[in-house]
Amino acid sequence: MPFETRRLAELADHDAFIKRHNGPCAAEVETMLKVLNLKRMEDLIEQTVPGDIRLGRELDLDEPRSEAEALEYLSQLARQNRVAKSYIGQGYYGTYMPAVIQRNVFENPGWYTAYTPYQPEISQGRLEGLLNFQQVIMDLTGMELANASLLDEATAAAEAMALCKRSNKKSKSNAFFVADDIFPQTLDVVKTRAAFFGFELISGPAQELADHNVFGALVQYPSASGELHDLKPLLDAAAERSVMTCVASDLLSLVLLKEPGALGADIVIGNSQRFGVPMGFGGPHAAFFATSDKLKRSIPGRIIGVSKDSRGNTALRMAMQTREQHIRREKATSNICTAQALLANIAGFYATYHGAEGLRKIAGRVHRLTTVLAQGLTQAGITLAHDSWFDTLRLTGIDAGKVHGRAMTHGINLHYFANGDVGISLDETTSAHDVATLFDVLLADEHGLSVTALDEQVVANGMTGIPGACQRESDFLSHPTFNRYRSETEMLRYLKRLENKDLSLVHAMIPLGSCTMKLNATSEMIPVSWPAFAHLHPFAPRDQVAGYHQMIDELAAFLVEITGYDHISMQPNSGAQGEYAGLLAIRRYQAAQGESHRNVCLIPSSAHGTNPATAAMVGMDVVVVECDQNGNIDIDDLTDKAAKHSERLSAIMITYPSTHGVFESHVRKVCEIVHQHGAQVYVDGANMNAQVGLTRPGDFGGDVSHLNLHKTFCIPHGGGGPGMGPIGVKAHLAPHVSNHVVTPVNGVNEASGAVSAAAFGSASILPISWAYIKMMGARGLREATELAILNANYIAKRLGEAYPILYRGANGHVAHECIIDIRPLKAASGISEEDIAKRLMDYGFHAPTMSFPVPGTLMIEPTESESLYEIDRFCDAMIAIREEVKRIEAGEWPLDNNPLVNAPHTQADIMDSQWERPYDRRLGAFPSEAVTAAKYWPAVNRVDNVFGDRQLVCSCPSIDEYRH
Amino acid sequence: MPFETRRLAELADHDAFIKRHNGPCAAEVETMLKVLNLKRMEDLIEQTVPGDIRLGRELDLDEPRSEAEALEYLSQLARQNRVAKSYIGQGYYGTYMPAVIQRNVFENPGWYTAYTPYQPEISQGRLEGLLNFQQVIMDLTGMELANASLLDEATAAAEAMALCKRSNKKSKSNAFFVADDIFPQTLDVVKTRAAFFGFELISGPAQELADHNVFGALVQYPSASGELHDLKPLLDAAAERSVMTCVASDLLSLVLLKEPGALGADIVIGNSQRFGVPMGFGGPHAAFFATSDKLKRSIPGRIIGVSKDSRGNTALRMAMQTREQHIRREKATSNICTAQALLANIAGFYATYHGAEGLRKIAGRVHRLTTVLAQGLTQAGITLAHDSWFDTLRLTGIDAGKVHGRAMTHGINLHYFANGDVGISLDETTSAHDVATLFDVLLADEHGLSVTALDEQVVANGMTGIPGACQRESDFLSHPTFNRYRSETEMLRYLKRLENKDLSLVHAMIPLGSCTMKLNATSEMIPVSWPAFAHLHPFAPRDQVAGYHQMIDELAAFLVEITGYDHISMQPNSGAQGEYAGLLAIRRYQAAQGESHRNVCLIPSSAHGTNPATAAMVGMDVVVVECDQNGNIDIDDLTDKAAKHSERLSAIMITYPSTHGVFESHVRKVCEIVHQHGAQVYVDGANMNAQVGLTRPGDFGGDVSHLNLHKTFCIPHGGGGPGMGPIGVKAHLAPHVSNHVVTPVNGVNEASGAVSAAAFGSASILPISWAYIKMMGARGLREATELAILNANYIAKRLGEAYPILYRGANGHVAHECIIDIRPLKAASGISEEDIAKRLMDYGFHAPTMSFPVPGTLMIEPTESESLYEIDRFCDAMIAIREEVKRIEAGEWPLDNNPLVNAPHTQADIMDSQWERPYDRRLGAFPSEAVTAAKYWPAVNRVDNVFGDRQLVCSCPSIDEYRH
Repeated sequence: MPFETRRLAELADHDAFIKRHNGPCAAEVETMLKVLNLKRMEDLIEQTVPGDIRLGRELDLDEPRSEAEALEYLSQLARQNRVAKSYIGQGYYGTYMPAVIQRNVFENPGWYTAYTPYQPEISQGRLEGLLNFQQVIMDLTGMELANASLLDEATAAAEAMALCKRSNKKSKSNAFFVADDIFPQTLDVVKTRAAFFGFELISGPAQELADHNVFGALVQYPSASGELHDLKPLLDAAAERSVMTCVASDLLSLVLLKEPGALGADIVIGNSQRFGVPMGFGGPHAAFFATSDKLKRSIPGRIIGVSKDSRGNTALRMAMQTREQHIRREKATSNICTAQALLANIAGFYATYHGAEGLRKIAGRVHRLTTVLAQGLTQAGITLAHDSWFDTLRLTGIDAGKVHGRAMTHGINLHYFANGDVGISLDETTSAHDVATLFDVLLADEHGLSVTALDEQVVANGMTGIPGACQRESDFLSHPTFNRYRSETEMLRYLKRLENKDLSLVHAMIPLGSCTMKLNATSEMIPVSWPAFAHLHPFAPRDQVAGYHQMIDELAAFLVEITGYDHISMQPNSGAQGEYAGLLAIRRYQAAQGESHRNVCLIPSSAHGTNPATAAMVGMDVVVVECDQNGNIDIDDLTDKAAKHSERLSAIMITYPSTHGVFESHVRKVCEIVHQHGAQVYVDGANMNAQVGLTRPGDFGGDVSHLNLHKTFCIPHGGGGPGMGPIGVKAHLAPHVSNHVVTPVNGVNEASGAVSAAAFGSASILPISWAYIKMMGARGLREATELAILNANYIAKRLGEAYPILYRGANGHVAHECIIDIRPLKAASGISEEDIAKRLMDYGFHAPTMSFPVPGTLMIEPTESESLYEIDRFCDAMIAIREEVKRIEAGEWPLDNNPLVNAPHTQADIMDSQWERPYDRRLGAFPSEAVTAAKYWPAVNRVDNVFGDRQLVCSCPSIDEYRH
Repeated sequence: MPFETRRLAELADHDAFIKRHNGPCAAEVETMLKVLNLKRMEDLIEQTVPGDIRLGRELDLDEPRSEAEALEYLSQLARQNRVAKSYIGQGYYGTYMPAVIQRNVFENPGWYTAYTPYQPEISQGRLEGLLNFQQVIMDLTGMELANASLLDEATAAAEAMALCKRSNKKSKSNAFFVADDIFPQTLDVVKTRAAFFGFELISGPAQELADHNVFGALVQYPSASGELHDLKPLLDAAAERSVMTCVASDLLSLVLLKEPGALGADIVIGNSQRFGVPMGFGGPHAAFFATSDKLKRSIPGRIIGVSKDSRGNTALRMAMQTREQHIRREKATSNICTAQALLANIAGFYATYHGAEGLRKIAGRVHRLTTVLAQGLTQAGITLAHDSWFDTLRLTGIDAGKVHGRAMTHGINLHYFANGDVGISLDETTSAHDVATLFDVLLADEHGLSVTALDEQVVANGMTGIPGACQRESDFLSHPTFNRYRSETEMLRYLKRLENKDLSLVHAMIPLGSCTMKLNATSEMIPVSWPAFAHLHPFAPRDQVAGYHQMIDELAAFLVEITGYDHISMQPNSGAQGEYAGLLAIRRYQAAQGESHRNVCLIPSSAHGTNPATAAMVGMDVVVVECDQNGNIDIDDLTDKAAKHSERLSAIMITYPSTHGVFESHVRKVCEIVHQHGAQVYVDGANMNAQVGLTRPGDFGGDVSHLNLHKTFCIPHGGGGPGMGPIGVKAHLAPHVSNHVVTPVNGVNEASGAVSAAAFGSASILPISWAYIKMMGARGLREATELAILNANYIAKRLGEAYPILYRGANGHVAHECIIDIRPLKAASGISEEDIAKRLMDYGFHAPTMSFPVPGTLMIEPTESESLYEIDRFCDAMIAIREEVKRIEAGEWPLDNNPLVNAPHTQADIMDSQWERPYDRRLGAFPSEAVTAAKYWPAVNRVDNVFGDRQLVCSCPSIDEYRH
């Protein structure tokens, strides 16, 4: 029977999610419009978004779907995936995320909705988690310093190469050596990076390193095919020749292996995935990056350090904050912003929960079973490529075709080398029973081997695949933190204590301009935990991941329609990575056109620091275009500079709406000017959330954009990652986006090297964005954009009297965020934007973005998810703070002792018997009615940044230090 | 290939969970034994558990399984269930639990590990949730009062009958009328209850009520087969004849139906399941119970009331606390303790999130689709049994066999009446597409009906199945609470604010004697959310629930081995319900033996209040057996009384170890004495957690026991329910346990009426206990019991100097809990056990059990899940409090102004500018180092119980009242 779903839509509540995602209800919208002297939402939009770029139609997307419908549909896609038992290895392994961590961290909005811990006073929980992660990495690698994670192992390798180059002052070489028995995806990403840095890449057997004059070298330990060498002679020899050495390693193997730090490595990198993080079809996982002490000032990424607060108590913070806007712009050799904080926390907690003895048990079991497997295979006459191993065997001279057939029957994935060899990597989830099945698969059923008997031989004879020189002798994880939380009860309480130290979206609005802290709906998050999305290896055979491909294709189609581009590449796993991938596509396209000489990139002075950094990374010369006094791109200057560099002009990078929070009127014109010179337009997608459904970068002149899925499309910030930065491109650029060496992508040039380790970046979080778009539909997405703009304008209106609004568009409206200028107030009162930011904590809020893009300002972005109730609460707080500043200006409170400079107020303050402040406790810590009803307490007083950077300590302090 | 799992057990980490569940590690155990002057755990056990009852062998259970293994096995069982689309209705309906509630309440240990809110200062979050629930019930039923939930609709009906009897002073009748068109399981439970109360039960068409002289009547609205009558004339006429009336109703229907309160009902009961709680194969769900104001002092169950705290601020509390020990013992007509707090909270939040307009949309859609279905079927020539409906149609004269065949093909369950009629109930999850499918199933494919066209007719003609007199005219949920949290962001923050007001196991040890607050492990909880357990109708065909049956059979087999009984009945859904079911089995057995005259129940004076209450409910006369000065049963008195009542002796009810926390030496003797008189032994399973693996009630003389799965077997307390109270019985009693009228149980007499609505009680939480036993195995369970005893003895040792330990066993040891006597301290200082309990909150702990079983005492039960770290923290706090009391005794602090009588200290206290107390703020609110590191704040000051009971207000206060 034919059935017209559409006609009965009113019965179905398909669009129920829209009002769950969007904060303001109809009555609130009316109130806000009235305050803005507007009749209809349409008026606001017409006055705000330039007419010549407005879409003028609804996006062509499916009808919205209710949460239940979307989840049902997605579960159908999930059923098209098949979770086989994976022995593929190659950097991705089966693991068990302890249930207490899964439910209370991974699936807990108290953890996943938190922002990057730039405000340490309200982030001590996740800072402690990340410090634990660093300690785990330092202990296992034997290095003196570790950062708080990078995007993936392959990009970590590329960062290591760059660090070698900029740190190795002794070598004149421009070449970098990579051992050939390394994961192919690592080599591919390093190749890509090297090419545009202009490095020569030399690959060969590790032992040939000595034959080459290079500034640095990367070897893998254990190697990709499982072999273990004593690296000490190699690394020592390199050091003598002033070659810096990087070791890619495996975290679980290091439990049993001699730590690379003891072997002389300068840098150790790898993936912490198998510490409890699901493979997730490639990500997200936290890569680690550890160095010797001498590299501590140049290590890329974020580092958590120990400092003290204004009361002298121990307080953690991000050391040497490489905040986006602080990035070294065109002098950068890295554009890294996002880390994988949530996943690093999980890996750190995994180690905390298991402790050294638990990890030894796991690693020991993996290794013993591998040895049993090796023993059995050898007895059965199979040749092993190497006589050493931790968890991986490479079988040679075996009939791979027959093995493959039997493996399929058993639902088992193995690694098949190009030369016919077969690779097998065991992991935490491998049982003795699994090894017996592996014998059946590898040897057919008549082999007569007994795992029990083999195991007895292995134990009786003390057999091991780890050569003596490679065996670990040193202790690790002896710090009390790793020795206390063994019972689930203790672990649960530890996780909750940390969670409750942090302010996240579960407490309050986080009005961070440019960072878009909107709702991360539960229904969007739920599928990420499903085994059919979580437990797939990125190199699993294509027919086992059909559901993933369809979901990704559908998401790509949504994004094509939303952006107006022709093609989406899902590979970049952060926004900055997306910028890099986008500029790479431009450069490759231009090279293909015979225009490799085009290497000038125009960038407005208002641009985000990643823009020039990224341009530098692809070998471009950055030319800055000035902004006029309204903050808009100076069209005359642009015209001049484009003309001046016409021949060499490669691209312009613009952000839209601008980083000043304004829909610039002339964006179409800007694109035209650049196109007239034969160059490409890169539209930074940071502010895409102000465009969705109203305008499309692909329509007004963009050739390529990245999309911050973790901002516009609801992937949570995770306390500082994961993110996803896919790029949309016009058709001419499509063949030039990144391909993948193991799992190639259709329609992309084979030679287009990868930017990330996995073909679809952090694939397992893509269902979040898919679900968001599916549940919102065209109308919901447009309304979200409109409400984001309405909320921002309402704030600008309410705060406008207390604080000057720095930039506005042609009709006096801001876009989806607004910048308030604190400089006049500071000049008059001595109170800084930082004081206001810290004082907001007392009112229960996270600070807006500070001093970006303009120093001395605060940029406020409410997003569409905040209700008028919450927005008013925020505005009330800001206005009350302004009144407090007046009392300082009036001399009522001294400048060095008032609620602002003393902010945030902690329980330690309030407990003081002696209260020597000119205001009372209540005003200090409970300045509003809302706070009195539900107080969030900052865990520490204002943190001393200078002290922390001067005395850089990035390891866990002794427990006593927490206790003054 | 044969494979010996066992040999390789060391490789498999099967028993990894044991050390996650048990708190103390090996080193801590050693420390504690040393403090007790013991060498080995065996010594402690030998000295504590009487030799003549010790098991002397390990339990015969499977090897323990790791968390991953247990979950994998359970998921295989789940796959043997089949989730069909259910239109069965009959009190159980499909519904969507909003994802934000699922993840942040249902799956959040911050909610599910909380205890019953007897300590209101640290329970304001869930008290507010329950108050919301009450308001929802009051608004929708139109009644003046509602309680905070009962176990299920059927027991609520039985409670309603009992309430009618005890409240209806005007009627002399001993008969109760039940309309015949009522759910069969409701009738069955009411019948059981009536029989032992000695009520005559009259069942017939509702309209015949006028023909009978009864004290009360129960009608259903809408009726079980879906019909709607204007009940007003019927209820008015009954009232005129002094017949009290109860209306069983459906919460969603009441959104559209005239509220029973307006129709004249005295009591309205029903199930709130379809407000977001999964069917779960029968439970747990929160039944509701609403009455007119005049019944407010006699309403059964818990009621949340509004009171004020010592600062005069609004504070919620359980009004008229019917705490277990306060139950009216042998004068009781109800033994209810447990509610369904977690599920009531979920139902309340469901209403809070949807609000009146959302509920109208849902109920409106259900009704409109039902009307479309009715219209189509009528047009196709099908006869409907009734011309009114809300969501349920009864089809008559249809070929049920053919319909059944087609329904199976489509994966659809319908309700098949015994007479060949077919019933169909629609619900929130029914789509227009589903209705089209229903036409195909009911009419075969060639019916030519169009849902679209039918819907047009229905809308155009304003068709409805609700007679005019039954249509609702009044508003509901107009309170601000139900109108603010519409966006997920707002709802999430509301849930988190409430969560963070409450102290639960995620914060600290909850050392409640007799209540056993042990770990509720995440891996145990995860399966409860699985659709294959959550979404099954309790009356689904047997072949669709094979996995459930196997899991239940396995669990029963575990419990048989653990208890030494022969058979387990899973029906009772609370401990008290289990007592009732157990005594019923005894009475039925004795009746079958021709010994109905046996109606004397011996109960020791130390017994829990439910024991005599339950005995009274089955028509027994309670004879109290005295205890000696050591708190043990006085064997002489027992001998005398047994002899005296020999002929009429039915049973004894004992608790073991005793409620005094002691393994009485003579338990075997006690059982023998009673058996000599031909009577039965009921062993209350409240303290079963001290027996598991060490002794078995079935071995030392018990004939029947209930088991509190929510205590001993890890089902969480949920903030006051759910619970499960299955009973173990010896073979002779097995045929006499409760059967079920819809889904009969094998081996049980057909005539044994039910005690609960569903055959397996709250079946969906049984996987928790299954997983606990599976993951612990025999060794883990025994160790848990031993550690519970060790922890308790360690506490008794450490606290013994500060507080006298009231009772000890033969060798000076306590069992798994210990009672400290506060009476001497109170006599000396004026400080009460309540002051100490409240002061513990300042130290971050939940109070121990207060004044049970002995007034003026505190009973402390640490459980095995607490580590030595936490136990020491608790002992330190108790000792520090004793030192504080000394300062009062010494006159340093006045009795009316000291940290104990002022406890708990709140943020409001600490904020006071004027601090007029003889101790400083720090001592008040931060009395220990641990608290300084992580403070939990009680939300209100000490709550005024007298005020709250005098001025009983059980509806949501206006928002302003929260704000002084």
